Amino acid sequence: MVNTTEFIEDAVEEIQEQIGDANAVIALSGGVDSSVAAALAYRAIGDRLTPVYVDTGLMRKGETDQIRETFSYMESLRIVEAQDRFLEALSGITDPEEKRHAIGEQFIREFEREATSAEADYLVQGTIYPDRIESEGNIKSHHNVGGLPEVVDFEGIVEPVRELYKDEVRGVARELDLEEIISERMPFPGPGLAIRVVGEVTREKVEIAREACHIVEEEVEDHDPWQAFAAVVGKGTGVKGDNRVHGWIVSVRSVESRDGMTARAQELPWETLQRIQSRITGENENVARVVYDVTHKPPATIEYE
Amino acid sequence: MVNTTEFIEDAVEEIQEQIGDANAVIALSGGVDSSVAAALAYRAIGDRLTPVYVDTGLMRKGETDQIRETFSYMESLRIVEAQDRFLEALSGITDPEEKRHAIGEQFIREFEREATSAEADYLVQGTIYPDRIESEGNIKSHHNVGGLPEVVDFEGIVEPVRELYKDEVRGVARELDLEEIISERMPFPGPGLAIRVVGEVTREKVEIAREACHIVEEEVEDHDPWQAFAAVVGKGTGVKGDNRVHGWIVSVRSVESRDGMTARAQELPWETLQRIQSRITGENENVARVVYDVTHKPPATIEYE
Repeated sequence: MVNTTEFIEDAVEEIQEQIGDANAVIALSGGVDSSVAAALAYRAIGDRLTPVYVDTGLMRKGETDQIRETFSYMESLRIVEAQDRFLEALSGITDPEEKRHAIGEQFIREFEREATSAEADYLVQGTIYPDRIESEGNIKSHHNVGGLPEVVDFEGIVEPVRELYKDEVRGVARELDLEEIISERMPFPGPGLAIRVVGEVTREKVEIAREACHIVEEEVEDHDPWQAFAAVVGKGTGVKGDNRVHGWIVSVRSVESRDGMTARAQELPWETLQRIQSRITGENENVARVVYDVTHKPPATIEYE
Repeated sequence: MVNTTEFIEDAVEEIQEQIGDANAVIALSGGVDSSVAAALAYRAIGDRLTPVYVDTGLMRKGETDQIRETFSYMESLRIVEAQDRFLEALSGITDPEEKRHAIGEQFIREFEREATSAEADYLVQGTIYPDRIESEGNIKSHHNVGGLPEVVDFEGIVEPVRELYKDEVRGVARELDLEEIISERMPFPGPGLAIRVVGEVTREKVEIAREACHIVEEEVEDHDPWQAFAAVVGKGTGVKGDNRVHGWIVSVRSVESRDGMTARAQELPWETLQRIQSRITGENENVARVVYDVTHKPPATIEYE
């Protein structure tokens, strides 16, 4: 484990040396990695850093408001309302890799516009050590904005947390006084809720996934999982009142892990699972079933796509 | 609870009176209801009853062999090998009601041929009391062969167990000395594994569901559920070896109930769930995940379609 105070001093100095008098941009995802990278870079170069948060409509419940509040001290913060454009870009696509690709493309388009108008020469990224390992192993197309450097013509890439593991990043976040909701935040995938709805991304499915993820996060908090969420995985029959309905199946996942490379499905109390299913089916009448994922990684992945 | 000895005597007598010297047919499904109805009718009229078992390819593991053995004492037993014809009839159909309909149609076609060649005037059916209630409430298209009487021109329908609840039918089965695998058999839907694979019915999905159902039945036996099974509900990502795969999601369901009208998801020990997931993902490399259904009926149904 790194000494966080020393790490912050060194990182700030390194960023200043690398960027000099130039401008930089960073894409804020709402997660702890990019939040820490942004806070470090802002400490180093102030408002010459433009933090860009793109609201894709695929974010967690309340996430955009959270970002606005947490980073309100950065005058250069830009929030891009791109929900409709992302839904349109995803329309009709069902293949997981194509979904990731469409999101990546749209993201680059949104981000490039902001980077150009900020006259940024440097790109700051919150890449951490396990991201680099997974990218090298080619296990999945990288969930951060891996395509950015090739598309936007930057003078250099700055990756202040590239040597850290997740728990070390959290330590730095605490030392930087980032709010607990960010420092202790569970991992959230780059493509957001798009990969927590199996198949085509629609507004209805995304809304169900967003609300269900929120319920799961609340209910499992005491069990301290590495990651916990809900995904819309398909349709099945149910009974509401006297009617037979064809409703959504929501799968709940809560896993224990050290670094996300492998994971174990978490044993949750039956009462917790019952509270979760009752809240999720109760709050949305189009949800007919809630199932709990009991598979480890491997053979399953943590996320569904 | 009825007195089973008296019930059997009365039922046999009633069947003899109703059918007289004519011939009758019954469709054996492999379940306890039609097995009891067939055993009663055979006791009443002997080989003037033609029991017809249509192997739709959507049956439980080993079910056809089981039927052949259990009813080998009836010389008139006919086993129809119709697996390929059912798969073809279901090809391309994804809607649950349309699947039921296609299966019903194909079944009638197969059964009609046998009934005609048996010169049967009467149709014996294993309808039980809750079936009639659910049909009246129109909760679902009836899972038994409800369409038969309208299509095939019978002189009369004989329903010897129409006033019984499921547990009473089991009592009669034990009294009739039907093998335990039948008398204690869990309910199994008329359309078989077709409604345990969400969406289009393919040979691959049916095979996965059949094997997974068998594993679940074995593993939960000690917990004595009303019904327990597995269903193929969709696809999600997984990791096998170094490769990212897009594999099947299998949902496991085990419920407690008195009569199937309402049901509660059963709390199973974590070790049992783990053994189930490990066997199901281990035996078929195209299965990436196993989830456990924690929803009651209502709001879910017991089956998935």
